[in-house]
Amino acid sequence: MTSPSPNVPDAGLLSRFAALVGPSYAVTDAEALTPYLKESRGLYHGTTPMLLKPGTVDEVAAILKLASETGTPIVPQGGNTGHVAGGMPREAGGDLMLSLERLTRIHAIDPTGNTLTCEAGCVLADIQRAADGVGRLFPLSLGSEGSARIGGLLSTNAGGTAVLAYGNMRQLCLGLQVVLPTGEIWNGLRRLKKDNTGYDLRDLFIGAEGTLGVITAAVLKLFPRPRGHQVAFTGLSSVEDALALFERAADRAGPALTGFELMPRIGVDFTSRHIPGVRDPLPSAHPWYALIDISTADSAEGAQALMLAILEEGHEAELVRDAVVAASDAQAQALWHMRESMSPAQKPEGGSIKHDLSVPVAAIPAFMAAADAAVLKAIPGARICAFGHMGDGNIHYNISQPVGADTQAFLARWREINAIVHAIALDLGGSISAEHGIGQLKRDELAEVRGGIEIALMQRIKAAFDPAGIMNPGKLLAMSSQA
Amino acid sequence: MTSPSPNVPDAGLLSRFAALVGPSYAVTDAEALTPYLKESRGLYHGTTPMLLKPGTVDEVAAILKLASETGTPIVPQGGNTGHVAGGMPREAGGDLMLSLERLTRIHAIDPTGNTLTCEAGCVLADIQRAADGVGRLFPLSLGSEGSARIGGLLSTNAGGTAVLAYGNMRQLCLGLQVVLPTGEIWNGLRRLKKDNTGYDLRDLFIGAEGTLGVITAAVLKLFPRPRGHQVAFTGLSSVEDALALFERAADRAGPALTGFELMPRIGVDFTSRHIPGVRDPLPSAHPWYALIDISTADSAEGAQALMLAILEEGHEAELVRDAVVAASDAQAQALWHMRESMSPAQKPEGGSIKHDLSVPVAAIPAFMAAADAAVLKAIPGARICAFGHMGDGNIHYNISQPVGADTQAFLARWREINAIVHAIALDLGGSISAEHGIGQLKRDELAEVRGGIEIALMQRIKAAFDPAGIMNPGKLLAMSSQA
Repeated sequence: MTSPSPNVPDAGLLSRFAALVGPSYAVTDAEALTPYLKESRGLYHGTTPMLLKPGTVDEVAAILKLASETGTPIVPQGGNTGHVAGGMPREAGGDLMLSLERLTRIHAIDPTGNTLTCEAGCVLADIQRAADGVGRLFPLSLGSEGSARIGGLLSTNAGGTAVLAYGNMRQLCLGLQVVLPTGEIWNGLRRLKKDNTGYDLRDLFIGAEGTLGVITAAVLKLFPRPRGHQVAFTGLSSVEDALALFERAADRAGPALTGFELMPRIGVDFTSRHIPGVRDPLPSAHPWYALIDISTADSAEGAQALMLAILEEGHEAELVRDAVVAASDAQAQALWHMRESMSPAQKPEGGSIKHDLSVPVAAIPAFMAAADAAVLKAIPGARICAFGHMGDGNIHYNISQPVGADTQAFLARWREINAIVHAIALDLGGSISAEHGIGQLKRDELAEVRGGIEIALMQRIKAAFDPAGIMNPGKLLAMSSQA
Repeated sequence: MTSPSPNVPDAGLLSRFAALVGPSYAVTDAEALTPYLKESRGLYHGTTPMLLKPGTVDEVAAILKLASETGTPIVPQGGNTGHVAGGMPREAGGDLMLSLERLTRIHAIDPTGNTLTCEAGCVLADIQRAADGVGRLFPLSLGSEGSARIGGLLSTNAGGTAVLAYGNMRQLCLGLQVVLPTGEIWNGLRRLKKDNTGYDLRDLFIGAEGTLGVITAAVLKLFPRPRGHQVAFTGLSSVEDALALFERAADRAGPALTGFELMPRIGVDFTSRHIPGVRDPLPSAHPWYALIDISTADSAEGAQALMLAILEEGHEAELVRDAVVAASDAQAQALWHMRESMSPAQKPEGGSIKHDLSVPVAAIPAFMAAADAAVLKAIPGARICAFGHMGDGNIHYNISQPVGADTQAFLARWREINAIVHAIALDLGGSISAEHGIGQLKRDELAEVRGGIEIALMQRIKAAFDPAGIMNPGKLLAMSSQA
């Protein structure tokens, strides 16, 4: 007779957890669990004995208290749109899942103070709409905004397409409510722009991928809704030219430059081929493209004049080979849709080895040249589709398999290619994860590339906040002995 | 025979510390120590057996290593311009001081990536000039910028007059180098806009007031230098009208609104009376004033048009009673000089009880009304000179003594009045320290006003980073048993 591993909760313990939320919110049915266990890139296959759906912060607290007392691992999950398996339970473990999906109340909107206070299960698109409803902008925007939830976006410090002007999730949050692993509730739901009263607990929980506690509510920053908005799509000869154009645009537009997205020719090919409704906006082909997004507070004319000035200057400097300016909101959305389809458009082309890295902005051309050479040496015929947020130094350096190659054999080289590409980025002072985080995917690599003292400090923080080691074990940091 | 307290270093230990920096950089002479022991408000009188002036990060590391091994308390000091005695040694203790003043190298400026990497002893004004030299802006600006140093500004998460558009020091820093209490060096000097790789150590050291380690270098963000700049000074009837004008200005200007500073009539009286060169810019008196600062990236005309639009709209809405727009840089500087003289101008008027608090922006009128009533009830005849960064919700709620009152008797009520005013701010969801920090001045009050779990988490972080309790003891958190 074998007893279950100490970390796999037995039936008695499971029913104690279920009782905390009520039977209809404690899911054990395999079919009902399927969507929660599906990981975006199909690299991980987690299992769980139970998924809990608390409806209040007090229920979250009760769950974590019981988990700490019984040493039960808890994996919080938001909209399950992450790319590093940070919200996935482990394959063989008995991790309980905690979904935030019922915590969807908007507590308050203050258009004078420009804040919105909401629960962590709110979907990003709903928050954008709520802000719009009071004449304000919540600027965070990304492909999965229709399902990503605020708690997950905070826990991964999400980025997206408006970071250049507005910052990522860390910069868009003023206050948090967090349930600690012990079940205690930290109420830091402050609506203050300035508050210098001790250590910055807020930013410690943001980006911690649920390993230090569960974010249950947040105060988000709102902004005036810009009156002017212009989007242009430009054809360019090289990454060097894209960088030079970015510099000029940033200098001319300042904070009105709300997006500068780099795309390669192959990305335009892929999207035109596979994404319904997408077509190449320019009459002839160019090696590179930049999508330029301008927002101005005061007037529509201001944005128009600014965009024309940038394009004229770029044309005179022989940087812009051709350009089209969106003449309507629908056209602007179509250009953005092409950019946001860069990743999905790679799927029909076979396997894709992905990177989410950053380098200092000025180092992007050097990075691209070195990475391209190294990747093509390792995998001749590989189709490099590197695109991303040029103004943030953030490149999604994705590599589609050679035409006709074996997909599984190609994908088997994921770690090998990661190591090559990451080494080049690190050499240039870059990072192996710009906006997606660490999760399970890059956990071991993080420990390798970061100095011992940095990982040691993180482990000390983890031990100080979660002595029982129950919070999202196996993510971000290597597992402690308890978990 | 009595031995010195374990925390007061004996002569042998002092000479070991002195040997680490060389005799000319280990100061024990009372006269030479005087400027380092002078505290801006004269509320604290620290003593020290020795001040060390390391010239390299390795010397800082050697000092902290020896301090940790011997349990010697270390108080880091930047430009000694703080307002909460955070860089002052304790009165009776044997705290050694560590000045950053020799770490003044600028390592690199990257105008494309908009970063500047420098040592922590650099003076803010020198950094502003270095950025200007490559056509860029380092926006942090405050009254003491001629002596405040980068390390201190980071350790206090300094604010100042440009926070509205650019954020405070936390938002202006990309990377740090920190010497840990153990003498280990964390090299986090990253120049990346996006880097989601683990817990946010950077923001933990920023604002920690030197209690977790010594910041020795930083990567700062630069910005394009605005082409347009306009400053206006407006006369207003009430704080409510100031708030309404702020809302309109923020909506119209968006990120181009780089300053919105509230001043009371009495502040204009004080500055006109006591500060050479300052005169009331408007022909008749108004109860309140707002200084509006506009910066535009693209053109000087843009700023001009925007300022005129804001003032016209404010006039039509009967918010702006009178206004003057600076016609030259010199006039703009004169208006800012009046604003920055609000605090020094109170000195000749006798004792001043000060507050640096924040509330949600929309709550400023309610705060002012309640605080004024409570203060005048407690001290009839008190002259309230409340001014500050309205757009940040940050009010320097200063109270000058009644005319003819006894200064010492008035100042003896500092804590009593603080308690009254802070309670009103906290009731409105505010903070007892918006930008100056906690230091010694507000340490005990912080522990009172914050929930136990918040202080407990901070203490756990402190213990995890500084087990020997040597770093700036008695600041921010109550002293641990070791220190």
